[in-house]
Amino acid sequence: MKKLINNPSEVVKDMFEGVARCHQDRMSRVNGLTSVFIRQGAPVKGRVGILLGGGSGHEPMFIGYLGPGLADVVVQGGIFASPTPDLIAAAAKAVDSGSGVLFIYGNYAGDILNFDMAEELCQDDGVTVKSVRTWDDISTGQDRSRRRGVTADVYTVKIAGAAAAQGLDLAAIEAVTRRAMENCRTLGVCLTPATIPETGIATFELGPDEIEIGMGAHGEAGIKRGKLVPATELADFMIEKLVEDFPLKSGDEVVFMANGMGATTWMELYIMAAASHKALEKKGIKVVASDIGEYMTTQEMGGCHLTIFKLDDELKKYYAAPCDSLMYSRV
Amino acid sequence: MKKLINNPSEVVKDMFEGVARCHQDRMSRVNGLTSVFIRQGAPVKGRVGILLGGGSGHEPMFIGYLGPGLADVVVQGGIFASPTPDLIAAAAKAVDSGSGVLFIYGNYAGDILNFDMAEELCQDDGVTVKSVRTWDDISTGQDRSRRRGVTADVYTVKIAGAAAAQGLDLAAIEAVTRRAMENCRTLGVCLTPATIPETGIATFELGPDEIEIGMGAHGEAGIKRGKLVPATELADFMIEKLVEDFPLKSGDEVVFMANGMGATTWMELYIMAAASHKALEKKGIKVVASDIGEYMTTQEMGGCHLTIFKLDDELKKYYAAPCDSLMYSRV
Repeated sequence: MKKLINNPSEVVKDMFEGVARCHQDRMSRVNGLTSVFIRQGAPVKGRVGILLGGGSGHEPMFIGYLGPGLADVVVQGGIFASPTPDLIAAAAKAVDSGSGVLFIYGNYAGDILNFDMAEELCQDDGVTVKSVRTWDDISTGQDRSRRRGVTADVYTVKIAGAAAAQGLDLAAIEAVTRRAMENCRTLGVCLTPATIPETGIATFELGPDEIEIGMGAHGEAGIKRGKLVPATELADFMIEKLVEDFPLKSGDEVVFMANGMGATTWMELYIMAAASHKALEKKGIKVVASDIGEYMTTQEMGGCHLTIFKLDDELKKYYAAPCDSLMYSRV
Repeated sequence: MKKLINNPSEVVKDMFEGVARCHQDRMSRVNGLTSVFIRQGAPVKGRVGILLGGGSGHEPMFIGYLGPGLADVVVQGGIFASPTPDLIAAAAKAVDSGSGVLFIYGNYAGDILNFDMAEELCQDDGVTVKSVRTWDDISTGQDRSRRRGVTADVYTVKIAGAAAAQGLDLAAIEAVTRRAMENCRTLGVCLTPATIPETGIATFELGPDEIEIGMGAHGEAGIKRGKLVPATELADFMIEKLVEDFPLKSGDEVVFMANGMGATTWMELYIMAAASHKALEKKGIKVVASDIGEYMTTQEMGGCHLTIFKLDDELKKYYAAPCDSLMYSRV
């Protein structure tokens, strides 16, 4: 492993020291906690607080989505490890203005356990909490509620943040956020592994011309290992799987995302995007917006996720609403 | 080489097909040319046009900086190759509203030749052109005008775009943009090589624990090869070199950038940023803003650039002005 770090066991602490120093105009720490940040201006009286969290190592997820129109508070754990219940509860209490807090997090065993425990801690203190878990990865079985969360966090927090900014109550925000999440489908393809900074160990091995479709954000096994094929062939296959899974029909309006896993160039993402747009167009599916970049990484992993977010009138309105964060801004 | 591409000789064409399809709301092609894009709303009558360009393969540079408050038109060449004079001239003519056009490009032999020839072509057609070349890389000798341009393009186009939006004339915009460029200093450190998509060849070789300070954006030789050291030690060394080169003094106000070269994680960039902030603080230099991310890459190269942009009152005002592009937005 070759990384610009100090003590490998302190990478998360050192990273957040950088975040705290660099962005004092945008955010501050909650109770001086290393990895819990509240945005400037939050909480807002009469507004629901939006809490986003999960393990570190996927930057810009989650800290990159802290800001007006997105998350009001972000809480991160260690590398690929859920934040603890006490941290989540501290974040929730800091952001509650009396209108309650929505938790958004990925559908992973550790996160479920810890966010549920935090919800209990909050209830004990009179803070009302609702949760939306993200499960957009179609490679992880037919039972959707057992699927992993991947890039859907981007759109769930976008919609939740916009709905909260409009002054909706907690139940209404939970409903529209859940619909946003249910309308996201993702499939990834991995080319090269990541190394865990704390151990220096690669998350998996692939041959020099091998790829794996459906690999998880922590290197979990995917659905298909094969030879590297041209981008257009790969995008066609992935789009087919995504469209089938919804299923989408001609006339549907969607947002398209090509997400870089860490070492993937914009060049590759746009080449995959061109092929994906053409495949969707052939099916009569209308791409009304595209997000191309590194929205959620797995360290320096090579590869990309394709995500489709199906819109309706309300989701379209909230998707287009202004927001401002390190990673995601809309004027 | 393992990349998500089709025909390796057509990566630039394929990438820009993706760009054109994904961002029709932001930009359109000039005269149907593959790699020349004008932002929506440009040209603006009575306003100077800002033209930014250079070789492809450094994305999000240059296309990521096309938008209000930044570049009005962007023109890119092949991988690591200057755009040709005819493309640059076509871009300039498309963006000229009669108030002239400012060219911003890196200080490389091929770019100088082609942008100069384009300037002549423009003059023949009555389009007034001024140019600012960027030369911020302090590792490339004491004669500043022979230095390479690296990340200074971000701040030069930010300042030029803000000044143009204020309605300044071409001479005034050239002056403030040149001052912005002169106020940028950059030093990079490489850890792992990039591969050129057209050939599959790595740009250089480094041992498993070796780094090289001052390597250029195309793999040009740097000033010092050595063992990988802790991030804090490395940042201290690099900041010392940057501060000396200006030289900066206690009380100076600066913007700090940690730029990822392609495969570098946000985690590493923030760890380098924390150490850099501390080193600057010790010298009494005030960091008033920080830009952390992948602003200019060399494909999937691993490593980072540290850039310091020294402010004065006018530069501070233009730095803070609103802008909106794929890579860089300010609300």
